[in-house]
Amino acid sequence: MTIAPNRQFRPLPVPSVTVGGYWGDWQDAVSDHTAAILLDRCVAAGMLEQINPDVPSPGIVIPILHWLGTPQMFWDSDLGKSIETIAYSLYRKPNPELEARADAIIDMYEKLQDTDGYLSSFFQRIKPEWKWTNLRDFHELYCAGHMIEGAVAYYQATGKRKFLDVMSRMADYCVRKFGRGPGQVRGYCGHEEIELALVKLARVTGKQAYMDLAKFFVDERGQQPNFFIEEAIAQNRDPKGVQKNTLEYNQSHLPVREQTKVVGHAVRAMYLYSAMADLATEYNDDSLTAALETLWDDLTQKQMYITGGIGPAEANEGFTDYYDLPNDTAYAETCASVGLVFWASRMLGRGPQRLYADTMEQALYNGAITGLSTDGQTFFYDNPLESTGKHHRWTWHPCPCCPPNIARLVTSLGSYIYAVADDEIAVHLYAESEARVELANGAKFTLTQNTNYPWSGDINIAIEPETPARFAVSLRIPAWAHGARLAVNGKPQDVAAAGADGYVRIEREWNRGDTIALDLPLEPRLLRAHPAVRHDAGRVAVMRGPLVYCLEGTDNGKGLNSILLQHGLGKAQAATIPNLRGAIAIDLPVLRENARDWGDALYSDKAPHTEAEQARLVPYHLWDNREPGEMLVWLRER
Amino acid sequence: MTIAPNRQFRPLPVPSVTVGGYWGDWQDAVSDHTAAILLDRCVAAGMLEQINPDVPSPGIVIPILHWLGTPQMFWDSDLGKSIETIAYSLYRKPNPELEARADAIIDMYEKLQDTDGYLSSFFQRIKPEWKWTNLRDFHELYCAGHMIEGAVAYYQATGKRKFLDVMSRMADYCVRKFGRGPGQVRGYCGHEEIELALVKLARVTGKQAYMDLAKFFVDERGQQPNFFIEEAIAQNRDPKGVQKNTLEYNQSHLPVREQTKVVGHAVRAMYLYSAMADLATEYNDDSLTAALETLWDDLTQKQMYITGGIGPAEANEGFTDYYDLPNDTAYAETCASVGLVFWASRMLGRGPQRLYADTMEQALYNGAITGLSTDGQTFFYDNPLESTGKHHRWTWHPCPCCPPNIARLVTSLGSYIYAVADDEIAVHLYAESEARVELANGAKFTLTQNTNYPWSGDINIAIEPETPARFAVSLRIPAWAHGARLAVNGKPQDVAAAGADGYVRIEREWNRGDTIALDLPLEPRLLRAHPAVRHDAGRVAVMRGPLVYCLEGTDNGKGLNSILLQHGLGKAQAATIPNLRGAIAIDLPVLRENARDWGDALYSDKAPHTEAEQARLVPYHLWDNREPGEMLVWLRER
Repeated sequence: MTIAPNRQFRPLPVPSVTVGGYWGDWQDAVSDHTAAILLDRCVAAGMLEQINPDVPSPGIVIPILHWLGTPQMFWDSDLGKSIETIAYSLYRKPNPELEARADAIIDMYEKLQDTDGYLSSFFQRIKPEWKWTNLRDFHELYCAGHMIEGAVAYYQATGKRKFLDVMSRMADYCVRKFGRGPGQVRGYCGHEEIELALVKLARVTGKQAYMDLAKFFVDERGQQPNFFIEEAIAQNRDPKGVQKNTLEYNQSHLPVREQTKVVGHAVRAMYLYSAMADLATEYNDDSLTAALETLWDDLTQKQMYITGGIGPAEANEGFTDYYDLPNDTAYAETCASVGLVFWASRMLGRGPQRLYADTMEQALYNGAITGLSTDGQTFFYDNPLESTGKHHRWTWHPCPCCPPNIARLVTSLGSYIYAVADDEIAVHLYAESEARVELANGAKFTLTQNTNYPWSGDINIAIEPETPARFAVSLRIPAWAHGARLAVNGKPQDVAAAGADGYVRIEREWNRGDTIALDLPLEPRLLRAHPAVRHDAGRVAVMRGPLVYCLEGTDNGKGLNSILLQHGLGKAQAATIPNLRGAIAIDLPVLRENARDWGDALYSDKAPHTEAEQARLVPYHLWDNREPGEMLVWLRER
Repeated sequence: MTIAPNRQFRPLPVPSVTVGGYWGDWQDAVSDHTAAILLDRCVAAGMLEQINPDVPSPGIVIPILHWLGTPQMFWDSDLGKSIETIAYSLYRKPNPELEARADAIIDMYEKLQDTDGYLSSFFQRIKPEWKWTNLRDFHELYCAGHMIEGAVAYYQATGKRKFLDVMSRMADYCVRKFGRGPGQVRGYCGHEEIELALVKLARVTGKQAYMDLAKFFVDERGQQPNFFIEEAIAQNRDPKGVQKNTLEYNQSHLPVREQTKVVGHAVRAMYLYSAMADLATEYNDDSLTAALETLWDDLTQKQMYITGGIGPAEANEGFTDYYDLPNDTAYAETCASVGLVFWASRMLGRGPQRLYADTMEQALYNGAITGLSTDGQTFFYDNPLESTGKHHRWTWHPCPCCPPNIARLVTSLGSYIYAVADDEIAVHLYAESEARVELANGAKFTLTQNTNYPWSGDINIAIEPETPARFAVSLRIPAWAHGARLAVNGKPQDVAAAGADGYVRIEREWNRGDTIALDLPLEPRLLRAHPAVRHDAGRVAVMRGPLVYCLEGTDNGKGLNSILLQHGLGKAQAATIPNLRGAIAIDLPVLRENARDWGDALYSDKAPHTEAEQARLVPYHLWDNREPGEMLVWLRER
């Protein structure tokens, strides 16, 4: 890859895009259910007692067998993400009751904030003596980051400045506290998050100091002497850390520009790389982009599930060895794939590039949205690619990071579909939507996508400028879309003219009534894994467009590993799945081994009896939304 | 299966059998190294400070991150098993120094014993207030069981009665304490062990009360009201137990005769069933035998690795669901397979039956002995059937149950080869050995096996009676030994005449110079798993005689899952492995996938390039004795 040119693409703000169709259904589920559920369950966990300065501190509870119900240092982050979700959901469906509940929480935070701007409920109300004693483990800046993101979203959604002002004061406090000047702390957070939040805050407030603080945190990370080692020594803690908490765990083992391998806790890594990509765009920083390109290849060529799931191991919630991608024990946390969507979208800041957009789509549709049930009421934390029928969605989790993370992504999806530069709009995702755009060159227009994507590959785009205007529309041609066809105002265009970046760039004067018709063939296709992935040896995965497919027990009975694909997908047929939002299934003939004539023996020199059968594959992200049962992504191939 | 007839076969005592050849090498490794290592490491762990009444009690150390180095309630069991190993090893090689060290430990125990006979160092020296407060969790009777086994062995080996007398006094104490009479405790141990130990003690002392106490413990187990629930309520503990400690965990969920499914902690289950089998023999108890036959089928037809490894899960060190046999995460504790050998050998108490003897051999050669390195100095605790190269033998473990367990099995192996009834000797295992036998019918003879088994299937047996004598010799014809040939004094015998029990019974008057020649063909064979075992789908295992084979990285490089067996074993060739005790390897042509022309992609619609190659399979139980690397039992089959 080559370093991107000095162009700056930024996402359209969430309010500028109205989403319908497939993603509209998801947004409805979040607006109608998830948004309130998030608050309900944060309240049930006792979070308000921690942040409300008008009630006695609950104090700390020593957990005996589990940590459910005891105040947590990361609770502010859950409230921050919940408020962010509520804010975005208010665009879609005004909800005065939910807005009032969010306002009340914001009032508590305003009252709780110290006069110097400091705000972190755990360290103000539960353990004041721990304040700023352990940046590595205590999530203090991480929480501030999520609160900042919530504040930005809430301001954009409601126009109310209170939360934004509160968090700006906390950011101002951090600008004073952290830096290379005398008396300042030359440190950064063990769980990256505040960096990308400060970029958002800088963009919405226009205040450069926030952007510079984000850059400071990123630039300082992993420099020698290592801050976390120095801090541990100063606090009389073991500088080597304990158990999983190595320097690699939080990506502080090397300066970020020298990092070449994706390591450690997966969510932390994604948030760091997201901030690095934002800063690469904002500062036109080629050294950051070069490091990110290396890390991108490392992740996507050696450490990523076909679902865009990442971080195979529960032990460190993160990365292990190259090509170590177990299916049934995959951790592949929902938050990590959400983080990959964040990172990929920000890699598009320096210009369209389908390498990133294709993977963003892959992670969005398979690794991330899988974490939410279609009714918006239950969640996956980890996302295995094979289940014996014991893995199910849950209603809540003692570490409730995933539900608000996927919910805020869903409700802000509009900002991932499009990105704009001075004289160009890039269409990164295909989705029923209407975008209201004003470019820096003055062009002002509405862009409407009419499509039943991802079930259909027919995409009709209408462009309605207020007055005729010259600008470019760049359309991603996914790498899998062999035989894609394109027409502008009915006139066929050469898709092969797509650049090395995989986008067709249509630059012209646009007039009212102009249309673009794009047809992306959604033929099912077979994928195999690199021969070094032992877990997928002799197996294939089926994809259709951006979607990974799987076998479910409810369609195919028990023993999914007895199913053998014998003749590829030649006879595959698409069918609509009843009661699953118009989702498309793939039916195809297979062989099935059974125990007929096998007898009682556990081991035998016989080969199992096989019979011809019809199998049904369904989109992986919709599994466990019907009757519970087994699930399998990687099918055996004869 | 049918209930066995009222015949009673008992193992030959360890001193009656001298072992050479293959097992002689293992016994040398234990005598020369393991026996002393066991004591060294028990001493290094601080066990002597716990049992020595002449030094201050070390007290209890609250473990922070791990429990290494703090007194354990199960330490007496480790010393008991170590003394048992030392005792047996003294038959093979007298070792005055090691014997003196064992004597010193026995002296400490004698001095520690209370006047009423009670002996349990943890509850005498560390936590006296916990004595008899928690039979479910505290291993109090379990430790007594292992000490009794050690005492029996030490008496048999050295003729010294001291330890036997000490443990007889403890057994007398238990006879008084436990029972259905007034003031007696109607309980049993959460970790079965003392039951089978009491059978051994009864056999060597002739004291029926010990046998009856074993029967009491077995008969009471799981009766209503459940003792462990009653005990917990009486001690103000949660009667439901915590986490893994369910009633199934220790097989107390049902009366033993009503149990039909093998559940819970694997070692506990094996020790229980071993005692049940002993009692079935001693009391001619068909109701116990019937239950055991059901449990046997349940284990071997639905829950056993092809290695004879059992208990797939680390979480409960035990059983999970039917056909749940993951290879790379297999727990399959060495102790559990040792326990399966114990159980299988005792199932032979009611007469020869190759169903049990074949599995005993399978577990012995693959599940159990794998736990010991050929030099007798390092150990496996868990025994996966696939390794990415990170699983290696260790020198010790905070729960050091496995090293002495496999060591005592190796050194007492002679007693598993043969069993005798009044007028019959059954040859259950083939191994270079000399047995000195006196039957109840007066026949007195030496039976010598000359064989290089398991590397060769040629077995020559010489029978030398003092005077001509009539008795039967029963020879197992393993189920896998198709085409076995047999001759008595050179005259071919009809192997097909083997009974339903799979044994050829040769009853005649034996004279000096009589010989039996048995040829068991050791052709490599392919095995497949029941179609319900998802982990082995599309894969085959290779066996030769009783041995499971595997691929190792040192012979076959990295990426063993890229190897494909294409044409069965038609072209397989046997070869001797250098420097591995004359072990036989199997070399065969395979296909190998590689990444040539694959490119950088992690997922692709290509098929991997394949090349013809020669692969080498080696006996599974010898893996990780040469250069470390990957290992794989279940090979892919095209």
